[in-house]
Amino acid sequence: MAAKSPFLLPSIGAYLISSLFLLTFLCGAVKYEPNWNSIDSRPLPAWYDESKIGIFVHWGVFSVPSFSSEWFWYHWKGPQPFSSVVNFMKNNYRPDFTYADFAKDFTVQEGIFDPNHWADIFHASGAKYIVQVTKHHEGFTSWPSNHSFNWNSMDVGPKRDLVGEVAKAVRKYPDLKYGIYHSLFEWFNPIYLQDAQNNFKTQNFVFGKTLPELYELVNTYKPEVVWSDGCNGPDEYWNSTYFLAWLYNDSPVKSTVVTNDRWGRSALCHHGGFLTCHDHYNPGTLQKRKFENAMKLDYKSWGFRRDTTLGEVITIEKLLQNIAQTISCNGNILINVGPTKDGAIAPIYEERLRQMGSWLKVNGEAVYKSRPWTYQNDTVTPNIWYTQRKDLKAVYAFLFEWPDNGFLTMAAPAPTAQTKVTLLGYPQPFTYQSPKHQGMVVKIPVIPYNKMPCKWMWVLKLTALAN
Amino acid sequence: MAAKSPFLLPSIGAYLISSLFLLTFLCGAVKYEPNWNSIDSRPLPAWYDESKIGIFVHWGVFSVPSFSSEWFWYHWKGPQPFSSVVNFMKNNYRPDFTYADFAKDFTVQEGIFDPNHWADIFHASGAKYIVQVTKHHEGFTSWPSNHSFNWNSMDVGPKRDLVGEVAKAVRKYPDLKYGIYHSLFEWFNPIYLQDAQNNFKTQNFVFGKTLPELYELVNTYKPEVVWSDGCNGPDEYWNSTYFLAWLYNDSPVKSTVVTNDRWGRSALCHHGGFLTCHDHYNPGTLQKRKFENAMKLDYKSWGFRRDTTLGEVITIEKLLQNIAQTISCNGNILINVGPTKDGAIAPIYEERLRQMGSWLKVNGEAVYKSRPWTYQNDTVTPNIWYTQRKDLKAVYAFLFEWPDNGFLTMAAPAPTAQTKVTLLGYPQPFTYQSPKHQGMVVKIPVIPYNKMPCKWMWVLKLTALAN
Amino acid sequence: MAAKSPFLLPSIGAYLISSLFLLTFLCGAVKYEPNWNSIDSRPLPAWYDESKIGIFVHWGVFSVPSFSSEWFWYHWKGPQPFSSVVNFMKNNYRPDFTYADFAKDFTVQEGIFDPNHWADIFHASGAKYIVQVTKHHEGFTSWPSNHSFNWNSMDVGPKRDLVGEVAKAVRKYPDLKYGIYHSLFEWFNPIYLQDAQNNFKTQNFVFGKTLPELYELVNTYKPEVVWSDGCNGPDEYWNSTYFLAWLYNDSPVKSTVVTNDRWGRSALCHHGGFLTCHDHYNPGTLQKRKFENAMKLDYKSWGFRRDTTLGEVITIEKLLQNIAQTISCNGNILINVGPTKDGAIAPIYEERLRQMGSWLKVNGEAVYKSRPWTYQNDTVTPNIWYTQRKDLKAVYAFLFEWPDNGFLTMAAPAPTAQTKVTLLGYPQPFTYQSPKHQGMVVKIPVIPYNKMPCKWMWVLKLTALAN
Amino acid sequence: MAAKSPFLLPSIGAYLISSLFLLTFLCGAVKYEPNWNSIDSRPLPAWYDESKIGIFVHWGVFSVPSFSSEWFWYHWKGPQPFSSVVNFMKNNYRPDFTYADFAKDFTVQEGIFDPNHWADIFHASGAKYIVQVTKHHEGFTSWPSNHSFNWNSMDVGPKRDLVGEVAKAVRKYPDLKYGIYHSLFEWFNPIYLQDAQNNFKTQNFVFGKTLPELYELVNTYKPEVVWSDGCNGPDEYWNSTYFLAWLYNDSPVKSTVVTNDRWGRSALCHHGGFLTCHDHYNPGTLQKRKFENAMKLDYKSWGFRRDTTLGEVITIEKLLQNIAQTISCNGNILINVGPTKDGAIAPIYEERLRQMGSWLKVNGEAVYKSRPWTYQNDTVTPNIWYTQRKDLKAVYAFLFEWPDNGFLTMAAPAPTAQTKVTLLGYPQPFTYQSPKHQGMVVKIPVIPYNKMPCKWMWVLKLTALAN
Repeated sequence: MAAKSPFLLPSIGAYLISSLFLLTFLCGAVKYEPNWNSIDSRPLPAWYDESKIGIFVHWGVFSVPSFSSEWFWYHWKGPQPFSSVVNFMKNNYRPDFTYADFAKDFTVQEGIFDPNHWADIFHASGAKYIVQVTKHHEGFTSWPSNHSFNWNSMDVGPKRDLVGEVAKAVRKYPDLKYGIYHSLFEWFNPIYLQDAQNNFKTQNFVFGKTLPELYELVNTYKPEVVWSDGCNGPDEYWNSTYFLAWLYNDSPVKSTVVTNDRWGRSALCHHGGFLTCHDHYNPGTLQKRKFENAMKLDYKSWGFRRDTTLGEVITIEKLLQNIAQTISCNGNILINVGPTKDGAIAPIYEERLRQMGSWLKVNGEAVYKSRPWTYQNDTVTPNIWYTQRKDLKAVYAFLFEWPDNGFLTMAAPAPTAQTKVTLLGYPQPFTYQSPKHQGMVVKIPVIPYNKMPCKWMWVLKLTALAN
Repeated sequence: MAAKSPFLLPSIGAYLISSLFLLTFLCGAVKYEPNWNSIDSRPLPAWYDESKIGIFVHWGVFSVPSFSSEWFWYHWKGPQPFSSVVNFMKNNYRPDFTYADFAKDFTVQEGIFDPNHWADIFHASGAKYIVQVTKHHEGFTSWPSNHSFNWNSMDVGPKRDLVGEVAKAVRKYPDLKYGIYHSLFEWFNPIYLQDAQNNFKTQNFVFGKTLPELYELVNTYKPEVVWSDGCNGPDEYWNSTYFLAWLYNDSPVKSTVVTNDRWGRSALCHHGGFLTCHDHYNPGTLQKRKFENAMKLDYKSWGFRRDTTLGEVITIEKLLQNIAQTISCNGNILINVGPTKDGAIAPIYEERLRQMGSWLKVNGEAVYKSRPWTYQNDTVTPNIWYTQRKDLKAVYAFLFEWPDNGFLTMAAPAPTAQTKVTLLGYPQPFTYQSPKHQGMVVKIPVIPYNKMPCKWMWVLKLTALAN
Repeated sequence: MAAKSPFLLPSIGAYLISSLFLLTFLCGAVKYEPNWNSIDSRPLPAWYDESKIGIFVHWGVFSVPSFSSEWFWYHWKGPQPFSSVVNFMKNNYRPDFTYADFAKDFTVQEGIFDPNHWADIFHASGAKYIVQVTKHHEGFTSWPSNHSFNWNSMDVGPKRDLVGEVAKAVRKYPDLKYGIYHSLFEWFNPIYLQDAQNNFKTQNFVFGKTLPELYELVNTYKPEVVWSDGCNGPDEYWNSTYFLAWLYNDSPVKSTVVTNDRWGRSALCHHGGFLTCHDHYNPGTLQKRKFENAMKLDYKSWGFRRDTTLGEVITIEKLLQNIAQTISCNGNILINVGPTKDGAIAPIYEERLRQMGSWLKVNGEAVYKSRPWTYQNDTVTPNIWYTQRKDLKAVYAFLFEWPDNGFLTMAAPAPTAQTKVTLLGYPQPFTYQSPKHQGMVVKIPVIPYNKMPCKWMWVLKLTALAN
Repeated sequence: MAAKSPFLLPSIGAYLISSLFLLTFLCGAVKYEPNWNSIDSRPLPAWYDESKIGIFVHWGVFSVPSFSSEWFWYHWKGPQPFSSVVNFMKNNYRPDFTYADFAKDFTVQEGIFDPNHWADIFHASGAKYIVQVTKHHEGFTSWPSNHSFNWNSMDVGPKRDLVGEVAKAVRKYPDLKYGIYHSLFEWFNPIYLQDAQNNFKTQNFVFGKTLPELYELVNTYKPEVVWSDGCNGPDEYWNSTYFLAWLYNDSPVKSTVVTNDRWGRSALCHHGGFLTCHDHYNPGTLQKRKFENAMKLDYKSWGFRRDTTLGEVITIEKLLQNIAQTISCNGNILINVGPTKDGAIAPIYEERLRQMGSWLKVNGEAVYKSRPWTYQNDTVTPNIWYTQRKDLKAVYAFLFEWPDNGFLTMAAPAPTAQTKVTLLGYPQPFTYQSPKHQGMVVKIPVIPYNKMPCKWMWVLKLTALAN
């Protein structure tokens, strides 16, 4: 059966799959076809937009050197080596050391790695879904893949199914969803390089490696996010629409799964599920289509670095501001943390995530299930961003700084007589003036330090606006 | 039998050293004698009390397993093993793995360890001195000692003089002093164990190991703190008073050095320089004699742990409260951080130290050069601790919480007509009432959030008090 | 071209290849077809039979544990583990150690591995061809294969092209030929296991791994022996006849290459080039078809063992006897040596090989280019084996022991008046009697110890026999 | 200054030890005094001279690199580095690798090291005593010494008492004696280097390290040979005569122990027990004093080398010739073998030792309990060496080659009428002529190859000679 045999030549596969579609069509079921028009027509499952915040987990063999970034291998052995990486290897390792030699030290030690502790942190952070790197461009699979012999987490190093263990722990929390990141291409896989050299006219890598892995991942772990990456090469090369059609029509997660847009050179930022466009995609203006801002707690790396200094870790203020900007413009935010090779989440990242969680406890109403408003940020006062909850007839203004002089001017909202202004987490409503019913001047009371509902960023709730 | 015991000589050594002292005395110089009365009579160099805050650095072979604590070896192989440690080894290492085998992985990698970055953090923290573990009970010397062949940082693992490198970097800051921690005994050194089994009647370990190391350390690195530890056994066994007499009379740091009290079983908490008594010594009442509260950022370990979670790291609030309590009672505080085996200070600890530094920037006036006041904490309102600066005619009240209801009652201060109350870092003075001139009720104004001079703890300055 | 694209579905491949044959046929060239009849019809290139003696080299990741045998992995993790191997791992390695973790220590150290020294030994041994294990059942390729990502000698461990280096060094000797051993299957490759579980009805492993590797090996290294192994599963599964047809028709070694019979379950001992049937195949009777006796210097293992004792190493006498028996019956002998993980050939094996070479210097005339005679061994006196050289009108009798009593009876030879008897390497002819012209009684002179032409085994040359 | 030098006491120690001797003298026992006259007056225990052949075992951390020689460390880091060693490290190890880092890999693996197998080989070799390196110049002790903390075989690497295990296994054979090699000095021990820099006027190393170790070794393992080495520096520095007096008077092996002469710069070749003078000491002329020729199976190294080639291994012929020459001149021979880091004796060495044993089975009569004869080698025919057995009225002539022309001329022996000549292991006596009764011409019969009693070297027994 086609769905079980992903190894067929494209044309034959296409034929079979088309026939299948025809068949299904005759049987009356709704089916997506392997072209972007059809694929793009699928509505995103609602849970995704409502979740707003996810956690990205970069963990792989790159976590062993944990130096420079998860692109360590490429920056060491790729076409344009980084001297910092080259010197790091020269100074600290034997001359013949290879990247694959690192795998042995991906220890994930018993007594240190505790997926339940990870899940507890993720849950406490207020995030609603997790996206775990199951295979980065290095090609190492963090699950016992049938298609990565001796270059996977069961055969070398951890001797564990890292994907399975994290997925299981995460799913103990009913309000957390589990998703996977998977790199289509691999920097140094000779089969891929051959295909690339053939101008992507051959697809040996796609049919021998990429697709079998994706089917295996989806069938085994039933992820609710499939976050594709590494989409060098044309979409046709990757056979992406065929895979997505299967994912949407026949996979075990067909009704709940969301995917991104990194399914081929020209799909990026155009097709698929939500758009990611580029890393740290935070456009600052309203986007028609749902997007995701994948960003990271360590400014310099997605993978753990042993030499990260405090100045390279995002502050909680900046993190919260990122959230506000992103969701104001129709984005979700995917916040990355890189665990250590032993399986620990460094306390500084745990701190940021728990700080975020404590902030969301007070202000989550303005985040989850919110939608972009007419205005994304205020037209007059900078550093105020908006969301709305139609179900609550409320608009929310995220204030990056506590107003300085007792009055806060907002030009965007058009209050009505019923409009009330409150500070989320604070009992008494605020007063305001709005002579022309467009724009408001809110009086900011002087609240004793210990009565402040939260730190770092504050949210005003404006109800019953005219706009 | 003589032929079997070539190591005896304490009494002879004592005799020679005594003669030396007699000689010096006849020559007319002021000299400390090798007895506690004389040793204890030396005043502490003023810099120490004025500094108030030091940083303790635990770094050694225990930083390689970086699990459980720096007592890893003892809890693995000592008389009462911890099952957690025993299992950790069983689950993660080959059966014949020994503790010494860890040393090879004490890599201190080029590109990660940067002593100048350490010094920058230490300086930014507001601490005024550093105490580095140069040898813990494991016996590994972090300098190329002549007395620890193949069990030192030049012969195994780092291949570097860790003591020399840190000392040099720290001393680039004129307001930072460098000190060393050194363990007298070693858990598993058979020479020590033999002495102990002989009820400390033989001193082969002391004369063959402990003392040579101490002389070497002082002569080579000229530390301004000599922080002794591991003082099992009687003072006489360790020949401590002789060493201290040399340190105070003849060493290159004789006029500036300070030491602690861990120089023998009965010296502890009684003799030497400042008293440490026990770890985390925070008595809460005024101490006649200068003491030091050695405490740590990771509640569970002095050495780095790979599995430390955020809940095990002290909060900045608790840390500052510890400082206030300690200095109110005549103590210095020595705040411990454990770097990684690679030589990194984890960002969470950098954060605590920089947070402390930012707080001290505002409030340092109440800390450095302060002295205990008549009262250590308030007699009525809890969580208020006091220091004074006679030079500034000021008493300082450290408030652990921001007052709740607009008024703060302090029973201890007796104001005069000249008494002013200010919040450190805030321009406008506070008003107060004090009908009976004993005790004050200070009116706490409502300060806008963004005008608060600091977070976490606040200091009121009371000038011209009657007491 | 079809021959360059080994990834096609079998039926299509078969069709294309058939067409190709048709085409070639029309063009007039002689072409082998992909069926056993045609394949078997190809005469063995003459060099192979004339060579008689080859060296087998087992070197791979199994050389790292170098314990038990090159089947270490299978005996550790396979369905019927050996307790010796299981205990070895339990006693000496960390619990999570995997077989792939060994690869890092396949060091092939600079300063120890010297392929020119290997070639010198091989050449001195008198062997005429080398068969190097390029991939054993473990799947690790000793060349930088495009089809074994991160499980090959360039990506892990040696960081060298072991096949290329040995081939080059061997070929510096014009009378040495280079061949490769290659295992069709891999014990633990999940793709293979899947095919096997599908009763070999799917061929994903064959088309994705086995065949691409074989083409790559032949095209890159142009081996003159292709020694296939691991032929579990039906011949059809392995697509062997197609590969062999290509090898014989179109490969760069089409006119010189020889292969064996391990191309599928039913090919073994029946089809292909020379027959190997089973390891140590030494039938003791004349075989119509050319066979090869693959045997080893270490009785217990093809791969190097660190714990080999002298009693487990074949004596030079036994080794020479094996040669005599084998070639008498129409076989070649392939003598195995297992180098160390560092790349050394242990002196005991160098000794055996050089001893053999010194013996062949004297007696090579009876070995190289010889053919089986009418009789393989003598019908009356045991431990006499025969070969013949028609070009020299000579029959050779290999004597395993020096005759005890001055007379040697041989029943097989039928002397003529012209028949002469000499001892190879000894100047004076021997006399004999043969009353009935069937059988001879040779008088063995008493030769002074130091005049003996060789040790261990001796060869009588009988010329101008009637039979 | 006293306070800086806590290590002085040779003169005091000497005083105490002298007193002890006085005391013993008064008690009436026979006692050796700590001076060379007295020490040298002790007769060698008879077992030693009768044994003739011992096995030397070099095994230590140098067995881990097993490259170049057991002087690896010195040739890497000493004053005149070998470029081969320096490059080996540069090419194969990380830049910061230290010699001590090798210790971790001195694995002595369970399943490979079998001391009983060693003892079996030693016994089969015909040797009568073993001398094991317990500490070479590297300072690593192969027993759990109290005086080499974390630089001994229990604390690092093997985690075993290698001395104890080998001693126990060897002693299961009643005709094998166990001895120890011990290096007085250590290349890189800073305490030793300090003493040396002080022109050996201080003895901190001797009293703190060398002597405690020697006492510990003798008391614990009761060796019957104490083979001292590394005798840089004057005898007085090493306090050698005191130790030897104790060894001969009071130690548990006082009546059976033998020692060598390497007890100080001027003792070498002059004082102590048997003389070793220099490595491979094979003077070729009669020595009045018993000597020992310490030589090795690998021409280039005492320690195992991974890259040893056959050409660097002594042939059995050369080995036997060495034995003949050595014992002819009043020497014992100490034949060295270097086991691997895992604890294996490579088969080539096992072969040499077993070959020697098989030869001695036939010819031992001429070796064990023999004494030098009037002539050491023949005055006319080269390569004939003599020993005698007065108890058997026999002189033995060791023939390095089998006589070429049927007659063997020996000029040294003066036959009587009773003189008989036999070949050891051969039944029939040989005839001879001796017209002038000085010198003999022995007729060498032509013995069939398979009747020869042995290979490699032959012994003629001449009884009832006049001289």
